[in-house]
Amino acid sequence: MAMAEVDHLAGERATAGFDVEEMKVAWAGSRHAVHVADRMARLVASDPVFRKDNRTMLSRKELFKDTLRKAAHAWKRIVELRLTEEEANLLRQYVDQPGYVDLHWGMFVPAIKGQGTEEQQQKWLPLAYKFQIIGCYAQTELGHGSNVQGLETTATFDPKTDEFVIHSPTLTSSKWWPGGLGKASTHAVVYARLITEGKDYGIHGFIVQLRSLEDHSPLPGVTLGDIGGKFGSGAYNSMDNGVLQFDHVRIPRDQMLMRLSQVTREGKYVHSNVPKQLLYGTMVYVRQSIVADASKALSRAVCIAVRYSAVRKQFGSQDGGPETQVLNYKTQQSRLFPLLASAYAFRFVGDWLNWLYTDVTQKLEAKDFSTLQEAHACTAGLKAVTTSVTADAIEECRKLCGGHGYLNSSGLPELFAVYVPACTYEGDNVVLLLQVARILMKTVSQLASGKQPVGTMAYMGKVQYLMQCKSAVNSAEDWLNPVAIQEAFEARALRMAVNCAQNISQAASQEEGFYELSPDLLEAAVAHIQLIIVTKFIEKVQQDIPGHGVKEQLQTLCNVYALYILHKHLGDFLATGCITPRQGALANEQLVGKLYAQVRPNAVALVDAFNYTDHYLGSVLGRYDGDVYPALYEEAWKDPLNQTVVPEGYHDYLRPLIKQQLLKLSRL
Amino acid sequence: MAMAEVDHLAGERATAGFDVEEMKVAWAGSRHAVHVADRMARLVASDPVFRKDNRTMLSRKELFKDTLRKAAHAWKRIVELRLTEEEANLLRQYVDQPGYVDLHWGMFVPAIKGQGTEEQQQKWLPLAYKFQIIGCYAQTELGHGSNVQGLETTATFDPKTDEFVIHSPTLTSSKWWPGGLGKASTHAVVYARLITEGKDYGIHGFIVQLRSLEDHSPLPGVTLGDIGGKFGSGAYNSMDNGVLQFDHVRIPRDQMLMRLSQVTREGKYVHSNVPKQLLYGTMVYVRQSIVADASKALSRAVCIAVRYSAVRKQFGSQDGGPETQVLNYKTQQSRLFPLLASAYAFRFVGDWLNWLYTDVTQKLEAKDFSTLQEAHACTAGLKAVTTSVTADAIEECRKLCGGHGYLNSSGLPELFAVYVPACTYEGDNVVLLLQVARILMKTVSQLASGKQPVGTMAYMGKVQYLMQCKSAVNSAEDWLNPVAIQEAFEARALRMAVNCAQNISQAASQEEGFYELSPDLLEAAVAHIQLIIVTKFIEKVQQDIPGHGVKEQLQTLCNVYALYILHKHLGDFLATGCITPRQGALANEQLVGKLYAQVRPNAVALVDAFNYTDHYLGSVLGRYDGDVYPALYEEAWKDPLNQTVVPEGYHDYLRPLIKQQLLKLSRL
Repeated sequence: MAMAEVDHLAGERATAGFDVEEMKVAWAGSRHAVHVADRMARLVASDPVFRKDNRTMLSRKELFKDTLRKAAHAWKRIVELRLTEEEANLLRQYVDQPGYVDLHWGMFVPAIKGQGTEEQQQKWLPLAYKFQIIGCYAQTELGHGSNVQGLETTATFDPKTDEFVIHSPTLTSSKWWPGGLGKASTHAVVYARLITEGKDYGIHGFIVQLRSLEDHSPLPGVTLGDIGGKFGSGAYNSMDNGVLQFDHVRIPRDQMLMRLSQVTREGKYVHSNVPKQLLYGTMVYVRQSIVADASKALSRAVCIAVRYSAVRKQFGSQDGGPETQVLNYKTQQSRLFPLLASAYAFRFVGDWLNWLYTDVTQKLEAKDFSTLQEAHACTAGLKAVTTSVTADAIEECRKLCGGHGYLNSSGLPELFAVYVPACTYEGDNVVLLLQVARILMKTVSQLASGKQPVGTMAYMGKVQYLMQCKSAVNSAEDWLNPVAIQEAFEARALRMAVNCAQNISQAASQEEGFYELSPDLLEAAVAHIQLIIVTKFIEKVQQDIPGHGVKEQLQTLCNVYALYILHKHLGDFLATGCITPRQGALANEQLVGKLYAQVRPNAVALVDAFNYTDHYLGSVLGRYDGDVYPALYEEAWKDPLNQTVVPEGYHDYLRPLIKQQLLKLSRL
Repeated sequence: MAMAEVDHLAGERATAGFDVEEMKVAWAGSRHAVHVADRMARLVASDPVFRKDNRTMLSRKELFKDTLRKAAHAWKRIVELRLTEEEANLLRQYVDQPGYVDLHWGMFVPAIKGQGTEEQQQKWLPLAYKFQIIGCYAQTELGHGSNVQGLETTATFDPKTDEFVIHSPTLTSSKWWPGGLGKASTHAVVYARLITEGKDYGIHGFIVQLRSLEDHSPLPGVTLGDIGGKFGSGAYNSMDNGVLQFDHVRIPRDQMLMRLSQVTREGKYVHSNVPKQLLYGTMVYVRQSIVADASKALSRAVCIAVRYSAVRKQFGSQDGGPETQVLNYKTQQSRLFPLLASAYAFRFVGDWLNWLYTDVTQKLEAKDFSTLQEAHACTAGLKAVTTSVTADAIEECRKLCGGHGYLNSSGLPELFAVYVPACTYEGDNVVLLLQVARILMKTVSQLASGKQPVGTMAYMGKVQYLMQCKSAVNSAEDWLNPVAIQEAFEARALRMAVNCAQNISQAASQEEGFYELSPDLLEAAVAHIQLIIVTKFIEKVQQDIPGHGVKEQLQTLCNVYALYILHKHLGDFLATGCITPRQGALANEQLVGKLYAQVRPNAVALVDAFNYTDHYLGSVLGRYDGDVYPALYEEAWKDPLNQTVVPEGYHDYLRPLIKQQLLKLSRL
């Protein structure tokens, strides 16, 4: 590999019409955020323990051991360097390898914080904070995923001993999937049906020790294992997703998480006076972080695809002259630039969700639950839409890299495989969108009674106007007016929702109608969520954004995003009469191409603004210096298959074939 | 695992309203085809050498050795049992593991047959037929994929020795990707720029020996290796995609493939009188087989998802009663049934393409090239559309299986990873669709001169009618009339093509216009290809199809397919005025749900008709008997990580963490 300083993309960087350093600030959220992320990314990239270029070549056992090593080393560095929580989180992000610590910090600790009493928190959190115990979150079962109420594991109170007996009554009740459970965790928050005095009180959480703190062996009555290989090489195989069965395992009564309800010494089930709604705060927090992760994963894929599309040349030469950069093709631009715009769109809506979380938390503390339903709809829906789009977009970016995108060294196969579970965990996307739809239908039904919707649903209060308005767009440039875009998106979302509500009202019952119309309801929910994303992007670019050309670039990307959705869902806009075919054609045939031409000279700089190190990107195609081909070539030789020139198996299986001696071999 | 005969899906099978055995015949094409496929599938499934359930757990070296073993064993069985070519091909299909034999039979042999002279064929084919040599197809280079004319490898004629000198002048000229090249092949057809008498005559094929037939070592001047790991575990990592560099390697002049052109002893470049068009026959053949493979891959994924959706239950219980089968949910049906219908649609259009290949071959032999362009457009376009849809659909089926679809034991991750290269190889799908679009534009431009388009483009001759017709659909049931569907699809495809042609004509030049409008041209090409698929499905169900209820089922699936496309691309139909919003709503809101209700009781039987063994499916979720959960549980314990209860790395990385001794360790 060339060790000299080369920059094959210098020409691309020279054409940028904006201040990249200021765009980094706009992307990261603040100058401070840029600096701390930069420091942590370099800390990880420069540490040989954190290398990951060989990850897809490791066996499952080697990979898991590597995860344990990285987790221990990361913790050591965090303690040694006295990193702040912000710094530690960033360091873990840049280590970029799923492992038990994700669940320990992301699920176990928050579950105790959210559902444990003060005493329980004082007992367990210090142990968890110092890693004296390692915890995971054991909810889903072999036969039960999204439907928490269907879980079968039981926790039966035994008043004789003041204990709960945790038990797995069936094969399908085996805990299945929890990350960190299979091999690493010493403890778990286990969800089980609470049974006391012969009555089933439904699902509750319990802190259960699983393994000995002395030798890590499973405690009596506890069966533990890993659930086996998962999608991709490397990827989530670094995680020990686990299976867990209980054979009448006893735990003290005070290991039930008792913030919301308790079982008394006598076995009485009693509710506390803490409102159940407080638990929603955690859910909003987890989902806003998933939206933030979506913009990270999408921007990584887009960064790789944009840089490699600027390096790669194909066709267009006249008799042996240089070929054309792939990034110049309109077909490439029309697939890639909307994804670039989506990365920025998701980033900004994620920032806004982060604000919403703070707002919801403050209101919950003041026992104000008025915005909770709307906040739930919007976080659930944004989680669903951003993760689905990101999963598809990573694969699209891989295809946009041509054949080489299929190599592990491109980084894209692993990025895809490690990302796609986001569509399923923390609420399956279809289930979540149906929840959004249910709230939309409720909101529509209340419009007649004059109840004004709030927050991201406030636009529905303009029902009379939005049901009959006609887009005023008369020239392509009219589509650059954010008012025109916003109105079209609002009218589309509202009309789809109202249409569903009307069709439901014709069914035998509300439930029957909801069930029959659920495919249409999904589409209405998506339309509502896309409106939120477009709106928050528009609001962002209407703010004061410093830096030469930065605001102009974001305005262009905002328009690219909105008109991409308009074209992709043109059927919705036309079927609901929000725009005419001519208005759609004005955008698609006369404007979008011009916007792409504005993005083109800025494309490489726009992905540079994500500020990702080559280590974090983990892609020879996405290298900052664009020196792709020597790197691809060098990576190839690292494959274990290249350890010998003549492959193992030649003497047994190839030579007899070529020498026509196969039939003489009695066995293969 | 339950060894008793269970069939959890017996209830589903009992509700089928058609003769499954006869549907197997309709799917396979003939009773003979069912029987021979059945025999070969069972032969493979019952042979322990062909087991593949452990494939995703093997290291790269073990996996490659396993491929060599399977290939040798398959060949041994083929010879021992004196299998016919049809049987041998099916046996290889059911072995279901990519390897060098695919390229040997699928590319090396056809290249010699198509481009070699009679003498060359007589010399080389007997060697290849007996595996005395193993061949591959070395075309693409590190820096050059789709654009064959950009290849850099040179073949310079040296009249002094009557030899060609094969050379790789740059790093980017390294041959890169050819399957079987990295480790297995002894020979290759190498594509290189032919240079003689100082002049570059462009790309030609040469037979080049790469490795010693005695000890398999690379010949002098030949550098060979594997290009490294690829997407997924197992999957295409069984294949030795290779890198190859030449350092002035000399081959005899008669190893240039000389059917179309020759270099004389003196170094003169001369064309033969064989028309170049004959080569297109091979391309049509390869692409029709890719379309057939698409229907196989898609049907496997759909089979897994349908069966598991019938097994899996979620939600819908009232207080502890049984939950609802996931297959009953309308959201599941609306995502899964169109894919089931697509599998059948692709199967039938594949059958028709197979007929087209025969037709084209006969015409070529008679030097009739009149239908060649149309046949090229239709095979290229069908290759592009069916592979893109299938790749996305496999991933959609995986998501439809919920979390468990992410496990390797579901079979879906590997099916996806092994399938997606089909979108790139044998013509990148975008490049192919642009070729279709170019032929569409040419056809439109010739309409004015009265030239009547042929074959799948014949409908364009009805331009005057189709440009102004209005759909007569007035009730939901009107959409069941194939004439209504066909007309709407024809009008949509033609209007999109004409619209593009008009916009191109306003550009500064034809080329400039084509370049600017290429994103729209892609959409027009897709519309044309979808019309072909719908048309061939309609033609199929208008034939006489024996068996109780078989024809009715296929009619339903044909309608499901057409109306799914209508809804998915509603923007096209509305923007071109082919249908009204009300007509679209009639289909989507009043008809599609009824069609799904007709499919529901037949769904499991419709995937049974694919007649796949559990071995070929390779999925615990797709098991014929539906006994999913014990199988999932059993598979999990096979993971190497479960060989020890306490994981490797505990003493080094977990115990010191828990015991708070991490900082005392000087190194990790």
